[in-house]
Amino acid sequence: MTAMTAAAIEDFLDEVFPHRQGTIEGVDTRRATMSLAIEDEHLRPGACVSGPCMLGLADVCFYVAILAEIGPEAMAVTTDLNCHFLRRARGDRDLIANAQIIKLGRRLAVGKVELFSAGEEEPVAIVTVTYALPDQEDDD
Amino acid sequence: MTAMTAAAIEDFLDEVFPHRQGTIEGVDTRRATMSLAIEDEHLRPGACVSGPCMLGLADVCFYVAILAEIGPEAMAVTTDLNCHFLRRARGDRDLIANAQIIKLGRRLAVGKVELFSAGEEEPVAIVTVTYALPDQEDDD
Amino acid sequence: MTAMTAAAIEDFLDEVFPHRQGTIEGVDTRRATMSLAIEDEHLRPGACVSGPCMLGLADVCFYVAILAEIGPEAMAVTTDLNCHFLRRARGDRDLIANAQIIKLGRRLAVGKVELFSAGEEEPVAIVTVTYALPDQEDDD
Amino acid sequence: MTAMTAAAIEDFLDEVFPHRQGTIEGVDTRRATMSLAIEDEHLRPGACVSGPCMLGLADVCFYVAILAEIGPEAMAVTTDLNCHFLRRARGDRDLIANAQIIKLGRRLAVGKVELFSAGEEEPVAIVTVTYALPDQEDDD
Repeated sequence: MTAMTAAAIEDFLDEVFPHRQGTIEGVDTRRATMSLAIEDEHLRPGACVSGPCMLGLADVCFYVAILAEIGPEAMAVTTDLNCHFLRRARGDRDLIANAQIIKLGRRLAVGKVELFSAGEEEPVAIVTVTYALPDQEDDD
Repeated sequence: MTAMTAAAIEDFLDEVFPHRQGTIEGVDTRRATMSLAIEDEHLRPGACVSGPCMLGLADVCFYVAILAEIGPEAMAVTTDLNCHFLRRARGDRDLIANAQIIKLGRRLAVGKVELFSAGEEEPVAIVTVTYALPDQEDDD
Repeated sequence: MTAMTAAAIEDFLDEVFPHRQGTIEGVDTRRATMSLAIEDEHLRPGACVSGPCMLGLADVCFYVAILAEIGPEAMAVTTDLNCHFLRRARGDRDLIANAQIIKLGRRLAVGKVELFSAGEEEPVAIVTVTYALPDQEDDD
Repeated sequence: MTAMTAAAIEDFLDEVFPHRQGTIEGVDTRRATMSLAIEDEHLRPGACVSGPCMLGLADVCFYVAILAEIGPEAMAVTTDLNCHFLRRARGDRDLIANAQIIKLGRRLAVGKVELFSAGEEEPVAIVTVTYALPDQEDDD
C-alpha cells in the first residue's frame, strides 16, 4: 500500500504545484506512471516533443513516486537530473513516464524514469533523478 | 565573429521554435547569454523557479550558442543533459543562463551552462549538455 | 545469438585491453554480466570498494555488451558516463555488473549498468553510459 | 588559507587511501590540482589513457579540494559523478586534473573537474561530482 493514492496526490499537487503538467495514471510501491497529452506548446522543430517538456514530466513523475511513499511533502526538491534522449518523441502521441525509486534514504531518494511515446515499446528517453528529502532543505 | 547575430537567432527561433522561452542577451565566440522573466507559471512550491523551467532555459541557451557558431540549423538535437541544482532560484528575479561550448566536433557539441538568479554571484544550477549536429539526425 | 561468445570476447580483450579488470560471467542479446574479485587495491577508506573501481567495471561491462552485438571492435570509446553511488559496496564480496544496451544506433550506443555486491539484492550503484561506435572515432 | 596543506593531505591519503593514484600539485581556496604519470596500466586500445583512469584522478582530485576546505575526513563519499570524454588523452603525457568546488553545503559538496593532457589547452574530459559529507554517512 502506498502512503497516498493517485487521487490524493493530484489534489495535493493542485494545491502546491498548480502549474505542473501531466496526469497521474497510477502509483504503486516505489513506482508511478503519468501521461501528458501533447499540445503545440510541447513541440520543438520537427514536430517532436521538446526536451524540456520530457524533463518536466520525468521530474514530476518521480516526485509523485516519492509522495506515494512518504506522504504530502511539498519541500522535497530535485538535486540532480541526468537525461539521455534516445529517439524522437512523436508529437501526435501522448508522452508516458514510468518512474521507479531505486534508493529511498533518509535524506536522498534516487530513481530512474523511462519516457515513451504511447503505444511504442522502445523508450524515447531515460532519466536518473535525485531528490533531497525535507530534512535537507536547509543545506546551503 | 559569430555565424549569426543575436537578432538573427531570435528571428530564426521565432520561426522554428516559437514556444521557447527566454530572451537572448548576447552571443560571442562559443558563448551565449539568455534571460527569462519569471512568471507564476515558472514557480514550484516555495515560490522558487521550478527545475524544468531552469532546464528549458539551459537547453535553449546552449542551442543558441551552437547556432551562433554553425548558423541556422533547426535539426540539432539534445542527446544528453546533466543538471545539478545547487540553490533555490529566486521567484522574484530574472533567471540568467550563460552557455559555453567546450567541444564542437563534426557530429557532437558538448558544453556547459551556468544558471543564476539575476544580481547574485553564486550559480543556482550547473548543466552539461550534448547536442548531436544534423549529420547525426538519422541515428536510430 | 550474439556476434561473439563470452570466451571470444575475453580473448579479444586480452589482446587489445590487457589491463582491464573483471571476468565475463555471460553475454546475451544486448546484455552482459561481469564479476570482479575484490582485492586490497580496490578499497577506499572504510573497507568498501572504491568508486573508480566500480566505474571501471561498469565501463568494461557495457563495452562487452557492445562487443557481443557488433563483434570485435577495439575503437569504440566512451563519450559519457553518469553514476549514482547508492550504498557501500562490501569489500569482502565480489562486485557484479549487469549491463544492458538501451539503444544501439549507427554511431552511438546508450545503456545502463547496475552494480551489486555478490549475494545482495539492492544495487550499490547505477550507471548510464554512452559509447561512440567506430564510425565516429574521427570526431574531434 | 586552506584547512590543510597539499603535503598534509598527501600524508593523510597515504594513511587512509594508500591505493589512490596521482600527485597533488597544489591546493587553493576551493581548488586542487593533481597530476598522474601515465604508465602502461593506464592505457586502453589506441595507446590513450583509459576512461576509468581519468575518472579515478577526477574523483580523488575533487576529494583533495574538499579536504583542503574541511580538513582530514576519511568518510566523505562520492554520491554521483558525471563525465563527458571529449578528446583522446595522450598516453605519452601526464594527465592533469583541475578541481573546483561550486557549492559546499553542510551535507553535500558539488563541483567540477577538468582533465587535460599536460601541455595542451583543450580539456580531454569534463566531470561534475557530488560528495556527501560525513553528516550524511548513515543515509541508507
